[in-house]
Amino acid sequence: MASSLKPPEVSMELHAINREKLLNSLRQHLTETSRPLHGFVFLQGGEEQNRYCTDHTELFRQESYFAYLFGVRDPGFYGAIDIATGKSILFAPRLPPEYAVWLGKIKSLPFIQETYKVSMVYYTDEIVGVLHDQYKGSGKPLLFLLHGLNTDSNRFSKPADFEGIEKFKTELNMLHPVLSECRVLKSDLELAHIQFANDISSEAHVEVMRNTKVGMKEYQLESMFLHHTYMYGGCRHCSYTCICATGENSAVLHYGHAAAPNDRTFKDGDMALLDMGAEYNFYGSDITCSFPVNGKFTNDQKLIYNAVLEAHNAVINAMKPEVSWVDMHKLAEKIILEALKKGSAIIGNVEDMMVERLGAVFMPHGLGHFLGIDTHDTGGYPKGAERPKEPGLKSLRTSRELCEGMVITVEPGCYFIDALLVPAMENAKTSKFFNREVIGRFKDFGGVRIESDVLVTSNGSKNMTNVPRETGEIEAVMAGAPWPLNKKI
Amino acid sequence: MASSLKPPEVSMELHAINREKLLNSLRQHLTETSRPLHGFVFLQGGEEQNRYCTDHTELFRQESYFAYLFGVRDPGFYGAIDIATGKSILFAPRLPPEYAVWLGKIKSLPFIQETYKVSMVYYTDEIVGVLHDQYKGSGKPLLFLLHGLNTDSNRFSKPADFEGIEKFKTELNMLHPVLSECRVLKSDLELAHIQFANDISSEAHVEVMRNTKVGMKEYQLESMFLHHTYMYGGCRHCSYTCICATGENSAVLHYGHAAAPNDRTFKDGDMALLDMGAEYNFYGSDITCSFPVNGKFTNDQKLIYNAVLEAHNAVINAMKPEVSWVDMHKLAEKIILEALKKGSAIIGNVEDMMVERLGAVFMPHGLGHFLGIDTHDTGGYPKGAERPKEPGLKSLRTSRELCEGMVITVEPGCYFIDALLVPAMENAKTSKFFNREVIGRFKDFGGVRIESDVLVTSNGSKNMTNVPRETGEIEAVMAGAPWPLNKKI
Repeated sequence: MASSLKPPEVSMELHAINREKLLNSLRQHLTETSRPLHGFVFLQGGEEQNRYCTDHTELFRQESYFAYLFGVRDPGFYGAIDIATGKSILFAPRLPPEYAVWLGKIKSLPFIQETYKVSMVYYTDEIVGVLHDQYKGSGKPLLFLLHGLNTDSNRFSKPADFEGIEKFKTELNMLHPVLSECRVLKSDLELAHIQFANDISSEAHVEVMRNTKVGMKEYQLESMFLHHTYMYGGCRHCSYTCICATGENSAVLHYGHAAAPNDRTFKDGDMALLDMGAEYNFYGSDITCSFPVNGKFTNDQKLIYNAVLEAHNAVINAMKPEVSWVDMHKLAEKIILEALKKGSAIIGNVEDMMVERLGAVFMPHGLGHFLGIDTHDTGGYPKGAERPKEPGLKSLRTSRELCEGMVITVEPGCYFIDALLVPAMENAKTSKFFNREVIGRFKDFGGVRIESDVLVTSNGSKNMTNVPRETGEIEAVMAGAPWPLNKKI
Repeated sequence: MASSLKPPEVSMELHAINREKLLNSLRQHLTETSRPLHGFVFLQGGEEQNRYCTDHTELFRQESYFAYLFGVRDPGFYGAIDIATGKSILFAPRLPPEYAVWLGKIKSLPFIQETYKVSMVYYTDEIVGVLHDQYKGSGKPLLFLLHGLNTDSNRFSKPADFEGIEKFKTELNMLHPVLSECRVLKSDLELAHIQFANDISSEAHVEVMRNTKVGMKEYQLESMFLHHTYMYGGCRHCSYTCICATGENSAVLHYGHAAAPNDRTFKDGDMALLDMGAEYNFYGSDITCSFPVNGKFTNDQKLIYNAVLEAHNAVINAMKPEVSWVDMHKLAEKIILEALKKGSAIIGNVEDMMVERLGAVFMPHGLGHFLGIDTHDTGGYPKGAERPKEPGLKSLRTSRELCEGMVITVEPGCYFIDALLVPAMENAKTSKFFNREVIGRFKDFGGVRIESDVLVTSNGSKNMTNVPRETGEIEAVMAGAPWPLNKKI
């Protein structure tokens, strides 16, 4: 099936607005700390990488902070923003003449300026001279470099480096937190990209759902998704490696990597858990659909699926500014536990279960994460914010209160993971909660995750994802009904 | 359209044979230089890479030498081969218990041994003890490490490193040339993989050709290719980033990378040059088809296309053991120049043109390269072999004589590249050869490349690629005829 969608125009205004936002925030910080409004924000873009010692080049994807500020698609750039004047400067690599034969027309500086709509463009070997000329302060010009911890990877960003950097003063502490925070609240243009990534990915999920047949390989679902989003959405990159888990694999939270490569042949009766999202002009989506591969839910599948769906819907309905994300996580846990109790899989008082963190046995991951240029977007734990220590909660990628303009994934799940269930069923404090007979029925069930990308609005939230969610909707679409359903039929 | 093909079983015997071949070769080298047959071949497999500072993990693809010897798909391994006994040992990373929750079942050592069919499996933290126990020589055990130049990338392979390596003697000079040379001549099992990669990629090229319509985007052709090879061939990786060049882009030899990302909308009258090849169980293919996007060759298109096709066919017919690859390159050049002369694009004596290296103006790249686990496979310039210095010839990735068992691409091309044509038309020695009027007609033509993967046999060659090549065949297939053509219709 073709698509009703078309990739939207990419406007460099998006990145100009991002720069403006950073400038405003930085100037405010400088003013508050009585420092002069001089110096440059200075970032190094990504470099193309070779595979090991070979000349196999990996498809380049720009570093995310650099993409945020400049939108540059080519490798080897540097970028500066003059804090005094607001001028933006790109430094392009000086390419050798052979480039024109092997890699394409060498883009002129005016062409690059026109493409990326910055104030000035020079070559990377001119950085020292240009920044000294532009600098209006006294002494060595000051560069604000990007250095700080990514709280999801526990890795540090690498500050820009270039020949002649010793001719500058450098500041390493201010830029990273300020810029990371800028990325948390999305502008309308950013939202439009995230919405398109959601639209094309939602459509692709429906397409995959409709073409899933018992006896296929998991990777065939991945292939259909990739094809739909690239063919009709122009999405060359995904936000992350596709997770196409069926049967018991659906209990492996990050299935799909090279050592678990979506290569199982799925069988009648299996559930599929497909976590796949395309990226458009750097901005991503992150969507999970769970459904029975044969198109018809069993009662057990309905029990787990509806527990997760109820949590998903309740969270989206409760979301609004000032709501704590930790509370949302607990809300999801509680609803899932209540449903499992209703289905007789667990026994006892749900409040007691909450105290014992039983929810984390069934949902060991966090409820959701910020989404943007990175799938796990920045700003989850700003300086001073504490990561919870309890099981489940400690996996949260943010513990913040919601604010208007945040985009966050809502992705409750319920899984039957031996590595967690077995110890919990043996543990003196939690063993009493389990109905072994019913739990036994779910031994090879795997798990269910339902994930949407949700924008926090001024008084609530908006779900940017549009896929069949009710079991009836899924069964109808898998049987050939159009999506959205024509309610009259 | 679906496919008549099915991914073949992957047999670890392939890698056992590769190890055996290396052992034989190493033992011979050691014997010839009167050294004891003791020590270990010792390699470090690849590691999963994160994108910059984030937790976005790139899809892992094993380092090629490690893949050749062990076929291991997972990251973080080391591997050893005992030169004295021939025993193969894998060292697997010791994974933390959380791995089971997030990334999948932790594979036991016996499971890994069964999967990869090696003699022994231990953890990476046991390397020192295991190798000391196994070593039968005197003094510190000797490790043959991989260190040497890749003559395509001009980069050095990184020798294995691990905690405790100082407890070993290391040898850095022997392994790289010997192992690189082993990879040059393919075994039957290796050929079967390369053949499947060719079969599925050939079929995908036909599928793309058939679905190419004026007004599409270049990347849509890439998307169709990727989908067909993954969906029906299980090929998750390509041998290289797809080059989907139309119109004047087809004169950019390595089009398709991030700064030239297959994003042009192609027009009636354009030629397409599609250089795309899938990889199956590490072994690749590398195929180029050129055709008019509207399905019908013009006379000018036929002129260039047939010049290149004649060169392609003549080379394949002339290939056999002991033939020099430099001579094959010159043969292709000569045929193309003769055809251009016949078409009145160039004027004068072709022998004189050859002396002036005019062929390199129209075909600046080499005629072809070894193909295997790397797209530009190892062994092109073994120690002592000299790279030619003349234009065109200096781009050859090998200057060797052919041997039975080599797989080499045959990829003549003819391009109209301003950066080369303009200087050549101004040069005192070569300006006389050009018919400016006719050359002018080809200003925005771009170029044509025709590329097949060819096995050198005992007395000739075998083309492993199977796509429409004659202009009539291409026009028929684009008009809907089956491939292979049913000759009766």
